[in-house]
Amino acid sequence: MLRIPFDQLHETLAQVLQRLGFSAGRAQTCARLFAETTCDGVYTHGVARFPRFVAMVRNGSIDVAAEPVAITRFGAVERWDGRRGPGNLNALAAMERAMALGREHGVGCVSLGNTNHWMRGGTYGWQAAAAGLIGICWTNTMPNLPPWGGVQPCIGNNPLVIAVPRASGPVVLDMAMSQFSYGALESYRQRGELLPVEGGFDAEGNLTRDPAAIEQSQRPLPTGYWKGSGLSVVLDMMGAMLSLGNATHQLPADPLREAGISQVFLTMNPAAFGAAAEAERLADEIVASVHHCRPAKEGSKVRYPGEKTLQVRAENRKLGLPVDPAVWQQILAM
Amino acid sequence: MLRIPFDQLHETLAQVLQRLGFSAGRAQTCARLFAETTCDGVYTHGVARFPRFVAMVRNGSIDVAAEPVAITRFGAVERWDGRRGPGNLNALAAMERAMALGREHGVGCVSLGNTNHWMRGGTYGWQAAAAGLIGICWTNTMPNLPPWGGVQPCIGNNPLVIAVPRASGPVVLDMAMSQFSYGALESYRQRGELLPVEGGFDAEGNLTRDPAAIEQSQRPLPTGYWKGSGLSVVLDMMGAMLSLGNATHQLPADPLREAGISQVFLTMNPAAFGAAAEAERLADEIVASVHHCRPAKEGSKVRYPGEKTLQVRAENRKLGLPVDPAVWQQILAM
Repeated sequence: MLRIPFDQLHETLAQVLQRLGFSAGRAQTCARLFAETTCDGVYTHGVARFPRFVAMVRNGSIDVAAEPVAITRFGAVERWDGRRGPGNLNALAAMERAMALGREHGVGCVSLGNTNHWMRGGTYGWQAAAAGLIGICWTNTMPNLPPWGGVQPCIGNNPLVIAVPRASGPVVLDMAMSQFSYGALESYRQRGELLPVEGGFDAEGNLTRDPAAIEQSQRPLPTGYWKGSGLSVVLDMMGAMLSLGNATHQLPADPLREAGISQVFLTMNPAAFGAAAEAERLADEIVASVHHCRPAKEGSKVRYPGEKTLQVRAENRKLGLPVDPAVWQQILAM
Repeated sequence: MLRIPFDQLHETLAQVLQRLGFSAGRAQTCARLFAETTCDGVYTHGVARFPRFVAMVRNGSIDVAAEPVAITRFGAVERWDGRRGPGNLNALAAMERAMALGREHGVGCVSLGNTNHWMRGGTYGWQAAAAGLIGICWTNTMPNLPPWGGVQPCIGNNPLVIAVPRASGPVVLDMAMSQFSYGALESYRQRGELLPVEGGFDAEGNLTRDPAAIEQSQRPLPTGYWKGSGLSVVLDMMGAMLSLGNATHQLPADPLREAGISQVFLTMNPAAFGAAAEAERLADEIVASVHHCRPAKEGSKVRYPGEKTLQVRAENRKLGLPVDPAVWQQILAM
């Protein structure tokens, strides 16, 4: 891995985006979101994903100039049309508006149809939590996961993000509805490792820890079997129904053509419920109670969701962001 | 199993509750919720649980006369004190108010601290969906589940309910954060069956399908391993922070003294986002897409969350509600 300084990476991506037709300001923001994702250690959805993003601009799936627009407004909720613009810029704007609604009404919601892949979902959770708000958001995806009891990929892995603000570091859960992504299966296979737990079915329909067998059967497991399968379905329903956008079954099962997806951004303002200071104290206490739990492995520690992020972020800011040399060459040539 | 007609069961429970000091109206409602839970096939949380509920009234954990009260109001959110009243009556009232807020503002939220076990969480999802609203609610519980990476029960199994309205039957997900409840482990053990998938660790720390080994180690698995573990933590945080009530680690680890828990009730009104008819059509389409998925077992069918409920409800209404004879004798003697 190369180590590229944050600012150099950011500037390089921004220049590529400007050459693709992004305005200067939007290129800066979009590039920053990619760089921050890699900086935070979510390597699958940061710079490594940039070439696919560029390919989707070039094949017309992403309209670089399109800005999202509010279609309906009612009380504390709005429905937006993402107009097939860049998914991360759309999501950032939708969460920003949901945050304003949450500040004004205590709770706020923006639904966003006709948008594109938001890259790292956690980004929008961190965004809300940094402002002292609870942020909940989810997206549907193209069909890529068999539901429990089914063998075809009829449902999406529909990531769900829940972020809780905390003065000494927010707690941010960012979970897809598959137990392992195809990217994770590939990594385990390349390292010659079995999965730590059963991750899908083999061609004979038996549960297995063999990543290659699951890649072959195309039957990864939903998180928690029937539970994640059901959660995927209700997230898709809420996303499509509130945005009047596409549901999973209406999306092309092609990662390079997965455009026009549906998302929901929900915020809650703890201060609006009264006694923000007490809520802050409670947040710290709960984190402490998790840390005090006796670990399964001597010397290890039970962690809360997102705990490693601040540390990885600081390390990558200092040492430079880890980037695959082949990906970097590809980007420099764009 | 006995088969007791709905009305007879309802009336019998209501009489017991009145003898315990419930007002006539509250006894009727509380008894109805127990009867409906059994009628819907959620046998663990219906009549079978009534004796424990009565024991908690008798030991002072539940105050039969206490009614919940709004402490703060701001825009579309309210914070309530449940005053340790009956958990199902408190939850019903909190969801009813969240529904009114959702109708008025498009989205609404009521947090409820200092309350008691809500029995079947799905009840409040069905309540919202029956009125055409999306209902999302969750509760924390006493510590009863080891977090991922830990060996002590430091987190709760914190059930989460998401209900989506649909004209021909709502979609209602009601999931706890443990893969199998202790009740489920007991049933498998009594039937002499292994679990269908790994459900926890044995005493040596190996994953196992043996229910007795998990009951012994007290290490059931969180749903989806690290994912359900993280979800449990953020649900607890949001519940305690928004209600300023107890967090899981502050609750006594004793099912008969598990009082003063924290809950959140959130509603979204699809009509407020515009084009309710289109949302309804989408709901049906998504359900159809799940049904069209090729099943793993010839002749079976992929189901959506809550799909069996309406059928079981109709059957139990017709044939009478299945009640364990020993439980029935216990109730008749109360």
